[in-house]
Amino acid sequence: MSRHIDLNADMGEGFGRWTIGNDDALLEVITSANIACGLHAGDPDVMATTMARALERGVGLGAHPGFPDLQGFGRRRMSLPETSLRNMIRYQTGAAEAMARGAGGLLRHFKLHGALSNMASEDAALARICYETALDVNPNLVILVLPQTAMEEVVLDLGCTWAGEVFADRAYNEDATLVDRALPGAMIQDPDDAAANMAGMVREQAIICASGKRLPCRVDTICVHGDTPQSIAIAKAVRARLEADGHRVSPL
Amino acid sequence: MSRHIDLNADMGEGFGRWTIGNDDALLEVITSANIACGLHAGDPDVMATTMARALERGVGLGAHPGFPDLQGFGRRRMSLPETSLRNMIRYQTGAAEAMARGAGGLLRHFKLHGALSNMASEDAALARICYETALDVNPNLVILVLPQTAMEEVVLDLGCTWAGEVFADRAYNEDATLVDRALPGAMIQDPDDAAANMAGMVREQAIICASGKRLPCRVDTICVHGDTPQSIAIAKAVRARLEADGHRVSPL
Amino acid sequence: MSRHIDLNADMGEGFGRWTIGNDDALLEVITSANIACGLHAGDPDVMATTMARALERGVGLGAHPGFPDLQGFGRRRMSLPETSLRNMIRYQTGAAEAMARGAGGLLRHFKLHGALSNMASEDAALARICYETALDVNPNLVILVLPQTAMEEVVLDLGCTWAGEVFADRAYNEDATLVDRALPGAMIQDPDDAAANMAGMVREQAIICASGKRLPCRVDTICVHGDTPQSIAIAKAVRARLEADGHRVSPL
Amino acid sequence: MSRHIDLNADMGEGFGRWTIGNDDALLEVITSANIACGLHAGDPDVMATTMARALERGVGLGAHPGFPDLQGFGRRRMSLPETSLRNMIRYQTGAAEAMARGAGGLLRHFKLHGALSNMASEDAALARICYETALDVNPNLVILVLPQTAMEEVVLDLGCTWAGEVFADRAYNEDATLVDRALPGAMIQDPDDAAANMAGMVREQAIICASGKRLPCRVDTICVHGDTPQSIAIAKAVRARLEADGHRVSPL
Repeated sequence: MSRHIDLNADMGEGFGRWTIGNDDALLEVITSANIACGLHAGDPDVMATTMARALERGVGLGAHPGFPDLQGFGRRRMSLPETSLRNMIRYQTGAAEAMARGAGGLLRHFKLHGALSNMASEDAALARICYETALDVNPNLVILVLPQTAMEEVVLDLGCTWAGEVFADRAYNEDATLVDRALPGAMIQDPDDAAANMAGMVREQAIICASGKRLPCRVDTICVHGDTPQSIAIAKAVRARLEADGHRVSPL
Repeated sequence: MSRHIDLNADMGEGFGRWTIGNDDALLEVITSANIACGLHAGDPDVMATTMARALERGVGLGAHPGFPDLQGFGRRRMSLPETSLRNMIRYQTGAAEAMARGAGGLLRHFKLHGALSNMASEDAALARICYETALDVNPNLVILVLPQTAMEEVVLDLGCTWAGEVFADRAYNEDATLVDRALPGAMIQDPDDAAANMAGMVREQAIICASGKRLPCRVDTICVHGDTPQSIAIAKAVRARLEADGHRVSPL
Repeated sequence: MSRHIDLNADMGEGFGRWTIGNDDALLEVITSANIACGLHAGDPDVMATTMARALERGVGLGAHPGFPDLQGFGRRRMSLPETSLRNMIRYQTGAAEAMARGAGGLLRHFKLHGALSNMASEDAALARICYETALDVNPNLVILVLPQTAMEEVVLDLGCTWAGEVFADRAYNEDATLVDRALPGAMIQDPDDAAANMAGMVREQAIICASGKRLPCRVDTICVHGDTPQSIAIAKAVRARLEADGHRVSPL
Repeated sequence: MSRHIDLNADMGEGFGRWTIGNDDALLEVITSANIACGLHAGDPDVMATTMARALERGVGLGAHPGFPDLQGFGRRRMSLPETSLRNMIRYQTGAAEAMARGAGGLLRHFKLHGALSNMASEDAALARICYETALDVNPNLVILVLPQTAMEEVVLDLGCTWAGEVFADRAYNEDATLVDRALPGAMIQDPDDAAANMAGMVREQAIICASGKRLPCRVDTICVHGDTPQSIAIAKAVRARLEADGHRVSPL
């Protein structure tokens, strides 16, 4: 059965003269770009440039807010009061919205970054604050959600538009969490393996765990990376396989 | 002849635990608040709190963007490429717009901060970049302009809505610039003097220079300060005098 | 029995144009200044000015490092790898050392700030990393320690010079922790009460808990604050009482 | 005639997760590393790691302070008061000194970064402030100087130890300034050309201008870069040629 599938990646994660990843290569493969919003990465110039390039290639734009921590790249957990979380999300989403319009496009989706995403997958109250605020800024945003986590609980309750996301290069535990990177087999390194794995998840609409167990869920978008030549190869293999399987690979 | 006059002040210039000025006292006097947008001062929490307080008192909200320089408080000149200026203004104005909506209000005006304002008053090309970008984010913004500077030239050319601004506590040179603070008489320290001076400028719609010379211009809004008890006294005296003269003191 | 007692306070917690507390008033009362080192507060200008003023009054200088988080003022906990903690402490202590020499003085003591201090009082491994690093930069530093916490365990084990610290304005639980600020009686608000309390703790060399229970420990230095007029009054009352009791109030 | 020659490069210019240049490749070629000190690049972790790697290879360490401007990478000019300059240099040099000792080494040299270097080459008063402060922190530092600029004037007047520096990949005007990058021939792109050029400058102890004119000066150290494969090739070719010519290539 043919489906509509999106490929997403984090983008615009530079700051000033610094860059990270390989945005140009990824933009040839993905259909949705998660744009860093200036507090953990991505100054206004990086945002503008990245958005313009994405739009040129028909790649959809999303806000990708994180904790205000450049040195930690938004990967250090912070315990913030509820109002601070709301303000932090509103500020970043609003800025990203204006930058997207300035580049001639619109924000389509919303995905939490780094430690904030990890926390939201465990904490429904925190996820709700973030999603409510994002939708208050722009009610048309599609929320990217890790299935079978607190995130999914929240979007089901909110009744908003959302997309279930899986990772192309990571093995899953039977509780839908990712296998710890320190363990063997945590990272899927062979492009063909990743492609076959993703084809299965999309077809079955389920997370296929390392153990072989199936966790039925929505699989609408696949997260790929661009930090290594190998990760780009994985992204390309996944896309080619999905297209070969007859799926329509396009933005959210 | 009775006029509509606005009193504006910079607000929300704290960051994290730091505060500056006396926003609460000023909010009882002014009608428009220029809200720092996070790059030279004003983190998202400060912005949200300040905007909420302003709206409670019927005070209008404006974006007050500056250079990305917390340590320098936006008072150090930076030479930026044109695109960086555009991106910097768009980012801050978009963030402020979202924060204003989140607080239940709307952005009404736009005023440049610190070194960026000084540079725009001398450099029409720079002023144009800033104003065009702000109006692209929100075409309804009223641009605050120092009369008889490059800023005025630009808004006249753009044909946008603008307001001419004078300072309540500063003496003027005959070329419409401010008397250097290092010179005697540069600062108007007596509330009654300031009130009389402002009443004259509003009535005559002209800058009244320290020399007595008149520079005809639009006088739509008066900038007051809150860093000292005296500056609050000046703000109150100016407002009382304008009301006694029959003017309507209300937001832009 | 007459003792040597030190009064310490956090100082130089401004950044750029922002200030906090009342350093000038505190410098008339205290004998040791804990100088913020630039990452949570205190830019190089603030450090230099604060150190110069302290030295003019014979007040001893100490490094007061915190987490790299201006917006959170070093009060948000961060989970950092051991090497990052070492590097962060070394960087700040080295910078403070150079600034102290530049002001014509020397660093005498070392006190952790905010969330870093809270964490070190609970986690001996973390405290050890911080103290070892500080002593590696300058082996003559006196380490300020909250008695009966993991900090004390570490300095006893290191065999280094240290000073036991109590708070002038806080009530203590029977486990040597501070009574939660949300509870009644947590803050000691009357200067005479604070002075009597401190006199007792110094005389008995014990923390006197709110319950009346005594926790014998070294009481070498008393932490006072400067954020409110009342806290300055407390600091003055404590000093006056200690001097009246015949103690020698002087730097570490 | 055989000489002692140093090859220097900027190093440790990452921040948090971001990196720039190819420090590992450069460390195989150079003899002195200019270490960013945290305000324009180089957080404490980056500094520690870079210094440790340099020391392992016998590469000398130098402080490389810049303006406090991460986003601008220290390449935007700032107009600072004299005391702020002093404090900024002292803070960074002191931090670098402590980090160098922590890595088991010592700071040997001092080189200004980016816009600060450009300004010091034009403004003797500014250069003097920076050099006096650095030498006050550590009197043994060798100051890296662009010959025939205001920098040289200052070190001659101070009577301190200094090294004259030329660039391996840039063409010179007849006034000892660099040919504008926008002009043809500004960048020397062929490794053999660069090597021959440097061999000539070392032998003649003169800047050899693009015009062929000689500007006699001290040529003690050659600055190489690591941002491109080509720049690494240039660095290697220069070193190989200097060694072939019988010079001793070693740290300052």
